[in-house]
Amino acid sequence: MNELHRMSAWFAGPKAENGDWFADTLRRIADDYYAWRRNYFPEDGVVVTSSLRRENEDFTDRFQDRLIELLGRLKADVPFQSPRYAAHMLAEQTLPSIAGYFAAMLYNPNNITADVAPVTVRLEHQAGQMLCRMIGYGGDSWAHLTSGGTVANLEALWVARTVRYLPFVLRDMRREVGLPPLPWLDEPSQLLGLSPGTVLTALETTFREATAAFGPSSARRLINAYVRSEWNPVENGLAAVCARAGSSPVLLAPETHHYCFEKALDVLGLGRRALVPVRVDSRFRMRPDDLEATLDRVEAEGRHVLAVVAVVGSTEEGSVDPVDAIVDLRARRERAGKSSFWLHADGAYGGYLRTVTIPDRIGLGGARVTVQIAGVERDISMQLPEHDECRALEALPHADSVTIDPHKLGYIPYPAGAVCFRSDLIKPITRQDAPYLDDAAFDLDADRRSGSIGLYVLEGSKPGAAAAAVWLSHSLIPLDTSGHGLLIRETIRNACELHGLLESYPELASNPAAKAVCLCPPGSNIVCYAFRPREPGASLEQINALNREIHDRFSIGSGDRVYDQSFFVSRTTLSPRQYSLDTVGGFLDRLGVSHGEYAATGVFLLRSVLMNPWYSLSKQRGRYFLSEMVEELYRVAGDILGKAFGSERR
Amino acid sequence: MNELHRMSAWFAGPKAENGDWFADTLRRIADDYYAWRRNYFPEDGVVVTSSLRRENEDFTDRFQDRLIELLGRLKADVPFQSPRYAAHMLAEQTLPSIAGYFAAMLYNPNNITADVAPVTVRLEHQAGQMLCRMIGYGGDSWAHLTSGGTVANLEALWVARTVRYLPFVLRDMRREVGLPPLPWLDEPSQLLGLSPGTVLTALETTFREATAAFGPSSARRLINAYVRSEWNPVENGLAAVCARAGSSPVLLAPETHHYCFEKALDVLGLGRRALVPVRVDSRFRMRPDDLEATLDRVEAEGRHVLAVVAVVGSTEEGSVDPVDAIVDLRARRERAGKSSFWLHADGAYGGYLRTVTIPDRIGLGGARVTVQIAGVERDISMQLPEHDECRALEALPHADSVTIDPHKLGYIPYPAGAVCFRSDLIKPITRQDAPYLDDAAFDLDADRRSGSIGLYVLEGSKPGAAAAAVWLSHSLIPLDTSGHGLLIRETIRNACELHGLLESYPELASNPAAKAVCLCPPGSNIVCYAFRPREPGASLEQINALNREIHDRFSIGSGDRVYDQSFFVSRTTLSPRQYSLDTVGGFLDRLGVSHGEYAATGVFLLRSVLMNPWYSLSKQRGRYFLSEMVEELYRVAGDILGKAFGSERR
Repeated sequence: MNELHRMSAWFAGPKAENGDWFADTLRRIADDYYAWRRNYFPEDGVVVTSSLRRENEDFTDRFQDRLIELLGRLKADVPFQSPRYAAHMLAEQTLPSIAGYFAAMLYNPNNITADVAPVTVRLEHQAGQMLCRMIGYGGDSWAHLTSGGTVANLEALWVARTVRYLPFVLRDMRREVGLPPLPWLDEPSQLLGLSPGTVLTALETTFREATAAFGPSSARRLINAYVRSEWNPVENGLAAVCARAGSSPVLLAPETHHYCFEKALDVLGLGRRALVPVRVDSRFRMRPDDLEATLDRVEAEGRHVLAVVAVVGSTEEGSVDPVDAIVDLRARRERAGKSSFWLHADGAYGGYLRTVTIPDRIGLGGARVTVQIAGVERDISMQLPEHDECRALEALPHADSVTIDPHKLGYIPYPAGAVCFRSDLIKPITRQDAPYLDDAAFDLDADRRSGSIGLYVLEGSKPGAAAAAVWLSHSLIPLDTSGHGLLIRETIRNACELHGLLESYPELASNPAAKAVCLCPPGSNIVCYAFRPREPGASLEQINALNREIHDRFSIGSGDRVYDQSFFVSRTTLSPRQYSLDTVGGFLDRLGVSHGEYAATGVFLLRSVLMNPWYSLSKQRGRYFLSEMVEELYRVAGDILGKAFGSERR
Repeated sequence: MNELHRMSAWFAGPKAENGDWFADTLRRIADDYYAWRRNYFPEDGVVVTSSLRRENEDFTDRFQDRLIELLGRLKADVPFQSPRYAAHMLAEQTLPSIAGYFAAMLYNPNNITADVAPVTVRLEHQAGQMLCRMIGYGGDSWAHLTSGGTVANLEALWVARTVRYLPFVLRDMRREVGLPPLPWLDEPSQLLGLSPGTVLTALETTFREATAAFGPSSARRLINAYVRSEWNPVENGLAAVCARAGSSPVLLAPETHHYCFEKALDVLGLGRRALVPVRVDSRFRMRPDDLEATLDRVEAEGRHVLAVVAVVGSTEEGSVDPVDAIVDLRARRERAGKSSFWLHADGAYGGYLRTVTIPDRIGLGGARVTVQIAGVERDISMQLPEHDECRALEALPHADSVTIDPHKLGYIPYPAGAVCFRSDLIKPITRQDAPYLDDAAFDLDADRRSGSIGLYVLEGSKPGAAAAAVWLSHSLIPLDTSGHGLLIRETIRNACELHGLLESYPELASNPAAKAVCLCPPGSNIVCYAFRPREPGASLEQINALNREIHDRFSIGSGDRVYDQSFFVSRTTLSPRQYSLDTVGGFLDRLGVSHGEYAATGVFLLRSVLMNPWYSLSKQRGRYFLSEMVEELYRVAGDILGKAFGSERR
């Protein structure tokens, strides 16, 4: 198990086993930084003299006191590093990412422009290329960091919106510059359904043709035509363009989509109702047949599709949509002369899952695992996700944009989101000019090559430190099966172990009063589950109350002390607003509740994100934390049921 | 000058004079954190054993090597800490903010929810309250941190957009719940011009009346009515609501507005052309007479005003719009039955200027200052901004929303922006529900009291470390004239000194070949200027070339070594697209160029942001860095002119 050993150097360790040497390293980084300050015009001499420092002892005293107060307060924070924590999307951060963040943070570069971040802007470009390579994108792709996945998704949809109406704008541009109409631009009925690749190629063609025919000065006329076009939503707003098109835009996303998509549609002016949900299967993966039917339906209704979202690692279930099937569907539609769409993959959580397929799929390992129930080691079987999910991940390079959060499965500190675009041809149309930044000029090739970040992104000022964190971590722990993929594989196996434990515990233990019902086998490394009484007949209301109470015992409230909290799980809600009965019917049946009850209240679920890297290594030291947690969950569930039934019967 | 001494303890110092003890502090923070790890279930034992650590020496070796490479690269970063740096909006960061960020960063809390950030979510609320108190907001205000000013401005406009159409939605809600129509809701012509205060009060009234009349269950019906209303842009999108209103929205902002407002209008679906610029005066402050004329004009054109933006500390000039006069104008219009508007103050840069007025205005000090030209100390006079700007800052509490970036004049590391709302009644209408976050329920009072952050903001995951940084810094350096105000006053005086030096240098020195022309006296702590040949007659093209060359010499290119760069200034462009001749005519005259030339090319300007805290203290040690920089600027300008004229005449 050498691979597991390797991972143990990447993190501080649950007992900070790597903390001592790493704290030395942090200290050296600070010393090195302050020495640099002295090396810039050393002859300038000191400003803050020793006597000034003595004069200010009052401030430094108060500073130290207040800092101790802060450190004291922080002791109430959550121990993400412990294998006892299997709740939200948080675990350790890699030591290189902390060192990289800390080192660059002292310099405080602002990655909006190389003027104030000559070093970290370059690191951000390199970090973006690492992510693009991980996705499988080619050299003409473009990626940058964001504050997080919400902004990354918003930015991707913002770009998709501009590209959606670009065919009309291109028609106007070509007319203005005096280029002959492109054949497909003459079929207005199809313009709203052109494939993004075709549209961006037409942009490039138009630029090249205009330059060849009329010289570089036509570039200025081209941008004027772009700005003036009445079809340009960037300039004229969505209302004007929709009115002109006589059609309103929709976004198709699986029922599992993150709530930030509704927020993004609100922000973008489309409105939350522009989100048309696509059904998922019983493992919470988008159903391509329903996608096809939905595409046809919204078009028959006279609406047009802004984009289709595929979720790669859903927030609640960790499910991976069949990107391969969606890509195939799109290709089939294009061949059949039907409308195409911008495909955005929301891999905010699951983008890094792809590392288990690079350079080739790595097996997830045997489907049996050793657990320890009531002090006895046992082998149980696990249901591993494999071929479907790998095929989906391998199709990611066909998505037009991908959101990936390094601060989730990248094990990087906050804030580190990222958005990746398959084609850097989107840069000229996202360009924002600021008078105090780089000089403005419309030059497609210059935009593609540009070292600037701020010109092409939704946000403004941004920490260069995040770029250093991502760059240092990924350059030391490669994004493939020799590095990060090992960690990802371990987390998937742990989720499958937890799923197996929860489901098979009643067979392993002596007659527990409760039974756990899992929502579905893990599609990656998240498990959702609910406890119910062993005997059927409980109402959903009773079951929800049971699981709420379990959650209360497995999380810390405002007054609780973290030192007494032995295990952590999180919660979610299976809501009838979000999931149709088609999707959750099977689970409700296994839970023993009626569909009508579900429609009235939804299901309160327990949820464990298995990001912690320490489970298998702990087993080597004789500790079976997942087994311990499941035993404790069953014990608490039985305890609550005993009291509840006790009090009811009294 | 005890006050200056006090400031010297807040930062590391240009030669890292406070670096040693502070690096000790950072080390103690790391040790303290890792000790906490060991204190959580200490009996769990180690996972990463000593022998494992030895097994992984290969990784730790590579880590240290790569880290040294990163530290080496970072040496090419920009020395913001030095008084030789007077360029972009960057200087030192306060020591408490670095310590706070670092301490919390190790715990890596995510301030989207207290579930994963029990400590720092509370700190963010407290930091928000500090900012609200600084603005002068009352206890019913609401503020939170963002990734930066761009997102803060976007969020404010997003909220303003929802509030703009709320009167129509309220009419629908009252009808649905069975409440009598409010008188003003019956005059549809006025609904698009109601004051934000009236609208939010009507929301509260409606909630209270419904609860009183029909009990708490009406809350559910209220939210259903809110969601269903065809006037609700959140649900239905902007196109539908604009079509219904038969009017399109515009945003009024001064010519000085930051480019992120065009970007925000694009993102929000209004389109960049929805920005209607308001003229500024010759000191680059919004002209209230032009605001009034513009308001009347856009309404006469059948458009409605989404919001008016007042800029508090413009990005290029540091100018402060007359918020007081804008507030008065709004009150006059309301009294006259004319339309009102949402007033958003973009204080991303200048929000902290207000600290010089808290609790009462502090004088900026004498209008004379000592400089040192050619080794001789001289007194020159300065033009200090004072009454107009203070009145504007004192009127900030009347703005409906304010953007403030702690990572600018708050001297906090990136990322730390903030958006503050005068009324927390906007929380229920910005609420976003996520199934795995807090439970959903529509309860106005609960929303106002809610400890959650993620439910009410545009972004998602966000670093709790930023909250700790802002909290620790502002709790140790108060946001008033006893603390932060001293620093702000110092920076304003320094800008005025630089302005005075640039303008009076030709009188102080012997016949320089060039002359600096300042754009205007500083409204706060930024100076924009251009050099021209002493003798008139140069073309704007020649003048721009001169200043470009100066900028090249006062900034580092990609190959340059920072150690050789003696001074830094930044640049900007006075663009005819942005500034009318009315605004810049006087400056062009002083520069000796024609209005026609301006229209053709714009003016390339040098720009110095005077955030560095060390100028006056350096003077006490005999160094006059601003004088040195001005001498060097004049020397380089003369040098370039000599060569240019030499080569022309050859």
